[in-house]
Amino acid sequence: MRARMVKRGIGMKATVDGKTCDIRAVWFENGKVRMIDQRELPAKIVLVDFDDYLDIAEAIRNMTTRGAPSIGATAAYAMCMAALKGCDLKKAAADIKAARPTANDLFYAVDYMSEELSKSVDPVKAADGYAQMMVDKCIKIGEYGAELIKDGMKLMTHCNAGALATVDVGTALAPMRKAHEQGKKFFVYASETRPRLQGMQLTAWELNQEGIDHAIIPDGASAYYMSQGVDMIITGADRIAANGDFANKIGTFDKAIVAKHFGIPFYVAAPISTFDFNTKTGKDIVIEQRSETEVTMVKDYRIAPVGSKALNPAFDVTPAELVAGFITEKGILRPDEIHKVKQ
Amino acid sequence: MRARMVKRGIGMKATVDGKTCDIRAVWFENGKVRMIDQRELPAKIVLVDFDDYLDIAEAIRNMTTRGAPSIGATAAYAMCMAALKGCDLKKAAADIKAARPTANDLFYAVDYMSEELSKSVDPVKAADGYAQMMVDKCIKIGEYGAELIKDGMKLMTHCNAGALATVDVGTALAPMRKAHEQGKKFFVYASETRPRLQGMQLTAWELNQEGIDHAIIPDGASAYYMSQGVDMIITGADRIAANGDFANKIGTFDKAIVAKHFGIPFYVAAPISTFDFNTKTGKDIVIEQRSETEVTMVKDYRIAPVGSKALNPAFDVTPAELVAGFITEKGILRPDEIHKVKQ
Repeated sequence: MRARMVKRGIGMKATVDGKTCDIRAVWFENGKVRMIDQRELPAKIVLVDFDDYLDIAEAIRNMTTRGAPSIGATAAYAMCMAALKGCDLKKAAADIKAARPTANDLFYAVDYMSEELSKSVDPVKAADGYAQMMVDKCIKIGEYGAELIKDGMKLMTHCNAGALATVDVGTALAPMRKAHEQGKKFFVYASETRPRLQGMQLTAWELNQEGIDHAIIPDGASAYYMSQGVDMIITGADRIAANGDFANKIGTFDKAIVAKHFGIPFYVAAPISTFDFNTKTGKDIVIEQRSETEVTMVKDYRIAPVGSKALNPAFDVTPAELVAGFITEKGILRPDEIHKVKQ
Repeated sequence: MRARMVKRGIGMKATVDGKTCDIRAVWFENGKVRMIDQRELPAKIVLVDFDDYLDIAEAIRNMTTRGAPSIGATAAYAMCMAALKGCDLKKAAADIKAARPTANDLFYAVDYMSEELSKSVDPVKAADGYAQMMVDKCIKIGEYGAELIKDGMKLMTHCNAGALATVDVGTALAPMRKAHEQGKKFFVYASETRPRLQGMQLTAWELNQEGIDHAIIPDGASAYYMSQGVDMIITGADRIAANGDFANKIGTFDKAIVAKHFGIPFYVAAPISTFDFNTKTGKDIVIEQRSETEVTMVKDYRIAPVGSKALNPAFDVTPAELVAGFITEKGILRPDEIHKVKQ
C-alpha cells in the first residue's frame, strides 16, 4: 500500500483497517480515485472511491477533500477520469472548475491537465505527475520553512494546511514536520477554526499522529496566547494575488492583525501554484459564502436558536502588508518579491 | 408571574409552559431561588429551583447562570438563602466567593449582602434590592448607550451581555434594546463565542426574542465583517481594573485589536459594580482556566482527536488603550475618567 500511495514524500501516519500505514489525501488506484473522507476525521478514517469526474467535483464541493493543493490534485484526477471515460474535456474542465470559487490551485490544476491531455499523454501518469509535483514543492517548502523554526519556539497555525490539504507533507505544517524531524523542540497552538473545525479535527490530528507537541485553542484565544508569547504564525493560503494579498480560511485576517499588534511575524506557506498573477489585489478574489448550517448545526443537532440566521464566509483576505514572508518551493519571498516567481 | 419576576425593568420575552411571559435570569419565589438554566438555551427554557446556598454556588460554578451582574445577583440570593437557613454567614460568604474567580460582581454582591445582613434586614428584601439595583443600573446604561446608536448602523457584540447575564435588560444589549424601542433601525453581528457559544445560544436568542435584526457569525469572521463596515463594538465586562484594563469573555481582546486596526470605536457596557478599584491594572486579574472538555466535546460527542489536548482560558484582558468608552449607569466614561466613579 505504501509504495503506491506514497512514492517520494513522507506520507501521513494513519491507521486503516487496524494497520498503521503512510497515506496520502488522494491518489489513483485500480482504476479509481481514492481519497480520505476528511469530514469523518478525527473520529475515523474512511476511504472513498470515485470513477465519475462529476462525483469527484462534488467531493471537492462538499469538502470530502479540501485544502488548496489537495483540491488541485483532486481536480487533476477528475480530469484524468474524464479522459479515461472519453468525456468531453472542455465540458469536464468547466464542471470541475465550478466546484469551488476561491482556491487558485483548482483552476491551475485543470488548466495543467487540459494542456497535458492535449498532448495525448497517459491521463493517470499526468495526474500522478501533478500530485507528485505538489508533494515535491511541499518538501521544498518544509526545508525552507524549517530554517525559521528554532528550539523552544511557540508557533501558531489556523485551519489545516497539512498533508490532508496538500496530498502529502503539507504547506504550513511542512516546516513543522521538517523541524521535528531535525530534532527541534517547539510547541504549536492549533486554532480550532470554526465553523468546520479543520484546525481541531485535521491539524491537531496530524500533529498528534506525527508526535508534535501542540494544543487546540478556540479561535478567540489567539490574542490571549499571542500576548503571552508566540514567536511565529504560519498558515496556508487558498489564493495569493499579484500584490501579495491572500485569501485563506476565515479567521486568518483576524490573526494577522493581532500578530501585527504584538510584532509577531506572520508567514504564509504555499506553492507557486497558489499565486494568481491575473488577480491584481485581494479585492478581486471571490469569497465563497457557504451554508449557514455549517455554523448553526453540529452533526444533526441544531445549536443555534430557531429564527436566528448565521453568516458563513469561508475565507477572508489578508493584505500583503501583514505578511512577513511567503514560504514557497523557491524560497522565502517578501510580498514585494513575489513578482520574481511569476510563471 | 410577570409582577413577581419583572417589577421595574423590561423582562426578557420567553415562552415557559406554552405561555409567552417576561422573565428574569434569577429571582426569589416561594422560599426558593429560581433561575433559567442557561446551559439548556436555546433548545428549551428550563427553570431550576434551589434552597441551599451551596447548590446556588455550584450553579454559578457550572454556569447554570452566568454573566457578571447575574452572577452577582445569584450570589446575593445565595447569601439570602444562607441567612434564611441560619448558616454561618462568614463561611457562606467564603464558599460563594470561591465559585468563580474573575467576575468582580460576585465579590461585590457578597460583600454588599454581608453588610446588609449585619444590619438585620430581611434577607429576601436585601437580595431583591440588590437585583433591582442592578436592573436599574442596566436601564440607565441602556439610556446612555442608546445615544450612540444611529439609524443604519452595524454593531458587533461578543458573548452574552444581555438580560440573561444581568438579571434583566442587559449591559451591552441594553443600548440596543433601548434604541430598538426608540424605533431606530440597525443590525447586530453576534459572534458565536466559542467554546460555550453564549453569543450564538444566548445573545442571538435574546435579539431574536426582542425582534432586533441580527446574524450569528463565527468568532473568526470579525475582521472580515469589520473590513466591510462595522460602526461600533459593544461588549460587557467581568472585571474592570482601576486603569481601565478589563477582563471579558475570551475573544474580546482579539476583537478590540481588530477594531483598533479599522478605527472602529470599542465600547464596554458595565455597571460600576464591575469596576474593581483594588485591582490596579489588568495584569492583576486572575483568569479562570476551565475544563478542556468545553472545547473538545459538544454534548456527549467528542469533536477533537483523541490524544490532542485543548486549552480553555475563560477570559482575556483587553488594555484600556483599546477602549473608546465605558457605558455605565453614571454616563459614558473614557478610561482616564473612571477614577471619578470610585466608590
